[in-house]
Amino acid sequence: MEKVNIGVIGVGRIGRLHACNLKYQIPGVKLAAVADIFEKSAREVASQLEIPIAEKDYRILLENKDIDAVVICSSTDTHAQIISEAAEAGKHIFCEKPIALELGKIDQAITAVKKTGVKLQVGFNRRFDPSFKKAKDLVVKGTIGIPHLVRITSRDPEPPPISYVKVSGGIFLDMMIHDFDMARFLLGQEVVELMAVGSCLVDPAIGEAGDIDTAIVTLKYEGGAWGTIDNSRKAVYGYDQRIEIFGSEGCVIVGNPKPTEVIINSAKDTISDKPLYFFIERYQNAYLAEMEEFINCIREDKKPSVGGLDGKISVQMGYAAKESLTKGSFVKITE
Amino acid sequence: MEKVNIGVIGVGRIGRLHACNLKYQIPGVKLAAVADIFEKSAREVASQLEIPIAEKDYRILLENKDIDAVVICSSTDTHAQIISEAAEAGKHIFCEKPIALELGKIDQAITAVKKTGVKLQVGFNRRFDPSFKKAKDLVVKGTIGIPHLVRITSRDPEPPPISYVKVSGGIFLDMMIHDFDMARFLLGQEVVELMAVGSCLVDPAIGEAGDIDTAIVTLKYEGGAWGTIDNSRKAVYGYDQRIEIFGSEGCVIVGNPKPTEVIINSAKDTISDKPLYFFIERYQNAYLAEMEEFINCIREDKKPSVGGLDGKISVQMGYAAKESLTKGSFVKITE
Amino acid sequence: MEKVNIGVIGVGRIGRLHACNLKYQIPGVKLAAVADIFEKSAREVASQLEIPIAEKDYRILLENKDIDAVVICSSTDTHAQIISEAAEAGKHIFCEKPIALELGKIDQAITAVKKTGVKLQVGFNRRFDPSFKKAKDLVVKGTIGIPHLVRITSRDPEPPPISYVKVSGGIFLDMMIHDFDMARFLLGQEVVELMAVGSCLVDPAIGEAGDIDTAIVTLKYEGGAWGTIDNSRKAVYGYDQRIEIFGSEGCVIVGNPKPTEVIINSAKDTISDKPLYFFIERYQNAYLAEMEEFINCIREDKKPSVGGLDGKISVQMGYAAKESLTKGSFVKITE
Amino acid sequence: MEKVNIGVIGVGRIGRLHACNLKYQIPGVKLAAVADIFEKSAREVASQLEIPIAEKDYRILLENKDIDAVVICSSTDTHAQIISEAAEAGKHIFCEKPIALELGKIDQAITAVKKTGVKLQVGFNRRFDPSFKKAKDLVVKGTIGIPHLVRITSRDPEPPPISYVKVSGGIFLDMMIHDFDMARFLLGQEVVELMAVGSCLVDPAIGEAGDIDTAIVTLKYEGGAWGTIDNSRKAVYGYDQRIEIFGSEGCVIVGNPKPTEVIINSAKDTISDKPLYFFIERYQNAYLAEMEEFINCIREDKKPSVGGLDGKISVQMGYAAKESLTKGSFVKITE
Repeated sequence: MEKVNIGVIGVGRIGRLHACNLKYQIPGVKLAAVADIFEKSAREVASQLEIPIAEKDYRILLENKDIDAVVICSSTDTHAQIISEAAEAGKHIFCEKPIALELGKIDQAITAVKKTGVKLQVGFNRRFDPSFKKAKDLVVKGTIGIPHLVRITSRDPEPPPISYVKVSGGIFLDMMIHDFDMARFLLGQEVVELMAVGSCLVDPAIGEAGDIDTAIVTLKYEGGAWGTIDNSRKAVYGYDQRIEIFGSEGCVIVGNPKPTEVIINSAKDTISDKPLYFFIERYQNAYLAEMEEFINCIREDKKPSVGGLDGKISVQMGYAAKESLTKGSFVKITE
Repeated sequence: MEKVNIGVIGVGRIGRLHACNLKYQIPGVKLAAVADIFEKSAREVASQLEIPIAEKDYRILLENKDIDAVVICSSTDTHAQIISEAAEAGKHIFCEKPIALELGKIDQAITAVKKTGVKLQVGFNRRFDPSFKKAKDLVVKGTIGIPHLVRITSRDPEPPPISYVKVSGGIFLDMMIHDFDMARFLLGQEVVELMAVGSCLVDPAIGEAGDIDTAIVTLKYEGGAWGTIDNSRKAVYGYDQRIEIFGSEGCVIVGNPKPTEVIINSAKDTISDKPLYFFIERYQNAYLAEMEEFINCIREDKKPSVGGLDGKISVQMGYAAKESLTKGSFVKITE
Repeated sequence: MEKVNIGVIGVGRIGRLHACNLKYQIPGVKLAAVADIFEKSAREVASQLEIPIAEKDYRILLENKDIDAVVICSSTDTHAQIISEAAEAGKHIFCEKPIALELGKIDQAITAVKKTGVKLQVGFNRRFDPSFKKAKDLVVKGTIGIPHLVRITSRDPEPPPISYVKVSGGIFLDMMIHDFDMARFLLGQEVVELMAVGSCLVDPAIGEAGDIDTAIVTLKYEGGAWGTIDNSRKAVYGYDQRIEIFGSEGCVIVGNPKPTEVIINSAKDTISDKPLYFFIERYQNAYLAEMEEFINCIREDKKPSVGGLDGKISVQMGYAAKESLTKGSFVKITE
Repeated sequence: MEKVNIGVIGVGRIGRLHACNLKYQIPGVKLAAVADIFEKSAREVASQLEIPIAEKDYRILLENKDIDAVVICSSTDTHAQIISEAAEAGKHIFCEKPIALELGKIDQAITAVKKTGVKLQVGFNRRFDPSFKKAKDLVVKGTIGIPHLVRITSRDPEPPPISYVKVSGGIFLDMMIHDFDMARFLLGQEVVELMAVGSCLVDPAIGEAGDIDTAIVTLKYEGGAWGTIDNSRKAVYGYDQRIEIFGSEGCVIVGNPKPTEVIINSAKDTISDKPLYFFIERYQNAYLAEMEEFINCIREDKKPSVGGLDGKISVQMGYAAKESLTKGSFVKITE
């Protein structure tokens, strides 16, 4: 295969990041087109990155015979529809998470993909973080024996705007969805039931918007292991993303990377950097690696490691968590 | 006051440790007597530590007018009875945890203590660990703002003998009881309800003995914060006792101390020590510090910081956890 | 200014790295041409990176009016000559270290640059490492007060081929030259004299080639501080580049970054990654940052922070070290 | 052998520490007597520790047939004389470092010890620090292969009083003497020559007293390895005692222990404890372990691992460093 021709749909923050990676960092790709309902944004990015085609309507990209694949970074409510149309148009698809907030829409999108046989990769970028990937590899290799306990900490440096909170689907579908996927990824096992608690401790406005900002979820894995995830919308010290897998033969712990290795011994205490600020800094390599996998899968006709079902199950877990929070008891995750 | 005259009742592992600390490390004390139902043990310890009195029957110590205080390290089922008798005899009391496995017995013991006005300190040694104490002090000082999340990890290097498991009261009353106390201590708040999950993953024999060996408990604090505790009866890498308190202004994390500060850079990886092996090594300073407090409280007529109510509430939490495990839902902790 | 048109001269490992950074990572640049005496290499790189011009003779680049600046990555013995010619041709110059192994040649190059007023930046990439840069900034800010001691550790994962050792100028001019520059950079002070010891401990073949592979140099700064540098040609655990600056108000320490944040608690010990393998991995960001500075200096008509004099003094220090090693005493660094 | 009867001569800070350890921590010993030229000090310690004999004149202890061994903690200028007399009296001897500041006196003391066959252990307590001991053991085991480089950092939290500086023998004989011993201990090799630099950077009053407060010494080992030691009289962040041994197969690094394992993630940075304050805190275990070895050597008739020759060589190294500082060149250490 010659170069893979890619179109990026939606050029907000993440769309631009993928566009830059595709333009500058990944060999074997031609970034051929961008589309954004804010046409000005599309033109701006196209001009900066010397992309020949910039459109308001993504359908023009789908109709373009030269384009092999699309990267969907538009708003969540459009993902499922665009996936279906892109699949019908025979384009391979990379789609940011979540596929949709409605399970019915997710199923339709997955069905469309299956029917046409295009590749679908969902943007669970954290799976491609070098530390988390190594942790998972160590579990697979049996370094820690049979897993007994999983602990995932995931805290944002600051909450999103209240306007976003209102349409986000809530903390479980917007934020913890990444951790649900991580929980499945780390053990290579399904979670069979979960129990959620939480409340609004960071900002009452989040509560008024119908959401919570602090949550703990307890997980039961099909293999018998137990897990916990804790989330906070606001960690003043920056992006806090740590995991721990404890098993019969040991424990793997992943800490937060820091911008520098500098330590200051002062008369008062010992000081080092705080963690990297947020996901753009923390997962720079991971965003690149997931896109490299997507391109490789197209070039070598392989199935992406994070597919539609992964996209669906994480949403199911999010709904189970919402239900559990209301009911105050464990809820089964039904396929 | 002249020297405080102390008698130690029960000279198993912990009893001997307290006896050694009292003999050699704590000023202002005279270790005057020991008692143990295995008279040979009492005589042995007395000979090693040059203690004038060694008895089979603790009552002889209680009748001895020269003895000011007793340290109760006998088997759990005898604690409450000895507390009541010691209180009646006017002796100050340090008692190993738990006071009893039956709440009624605990109440009787506390009542006896109240009636006579002697001092009662319960052996929650971890409160006196320099790291945990500093973490608590930072919370009190407001360094991390309002607490939102507490995480406690507590894993033993290996399970106790099955014979002990059978009479231990189970993982929640024998092992997690320390973590329940730690949870209360760290925030200086009560836990209002909790939810327990767990199963037998380490050794089926523990399950056959009617217990579990792996557990996660979710806590709801009166102030609105949430907590999790995870326990395992077997961490192959040693005693794993870590905590984390996350709040509106930051996060305090306490890791495991290690025997040395040696790091080896090898051709394969970077190697450092594993954690200290078990509680004797880890809490050496804490055992000493709690006994110093007890002696100081006697000498200066102050109330010990860990009293009978602390001993009772941790047992109540243990029963709540047992009930929650059975019911599969949150259980209120009733005073 | 429109885009800066750049030609890269010499496309070995470092030349390719700079070419890739210029092509993909740095805005405001056009990578217009490459040259290499191995014409095939030039053509190969040009084809991979879609560079319009690929030549065997760098003079064709210098004669090209459209080219604003050159990045010199050819073999050391050609640097000074190309600098002079490039300066005469009015091209701004980025040159890999060292400018030359002969001080006379360095002076000629610097004179040529001064005469024509082009910008010259020397490739001391480590100054742009985020950790070392932060350490220097802390010194400047006075965080550690008046510097008293500097310690620099610099060990390669494996020695270069013996064929290279023979023409390298020796450990002081090839390897420790970076540390000499770091020593000056960290304190922003000149070293007035130094004393070198060392021997051949890694590989006797290095000794037969007339060089040593293990060395310690003691530095005396103009401001009264003292420093030590230790070098080894072979650290089996990877690239070891650490620094420490101790002063009247504290100490700044920079450790080695690691590929991941993974820690394994095993039954035997606690295991983490070894350092990043070598300079390409370790100084990825630094190579990018130095080239960004070069481009910015051209665009904004500013003087590069690492100039010809820095290139010269580090070589002078290398010769002083050689002399000291032979004489067994301190040697002054003469400007 | 029954209990070893010990007399402590000199009960200043270190003498009291040894007395406490002998009284409370070490089995198989009877602390039978103390002597101090300040008789009041002797009586005070005797009363606190319930020691039967307290004298002004140490000779009374030497004449006492019941006393098996003495621990010499009097002022440095009296050590050699007391060793000789104690040896003649047939007492085993533990002597604080240095034996004397005059090599002739050291030789006389060693000769006296040899003639009578008593045991002599010199108080190089750092050899008994668990971390340094483990580092040495790893070198012995060959974990790091053939040693190439040794780095020792040793910085005090604050300088001693000027009055003490004047009689201390200077930084090399008072402070770095410990590091000279450590250098020999770590590799189990002699240093054949050394080179010292240094100056007065901490406090001009130290310079006026004829000493320096900041020093770096370069060491050449008999086996070909190289070492450096750096000393400062004042590290505002506390007692800084680190070592590093780099060899053909890896590197062992020993860092500073800290009082707690607490880490604070704040909005500004990540904060942990500073090192333990000074030698009393840092070497608590080491002081105990060296005394245990001394007692064991007496009880089991074994030769102490740190003998008179070790005491002598470290002083010789101190003189070599003084000479080197004056001459500005390497100086051989002559046996």
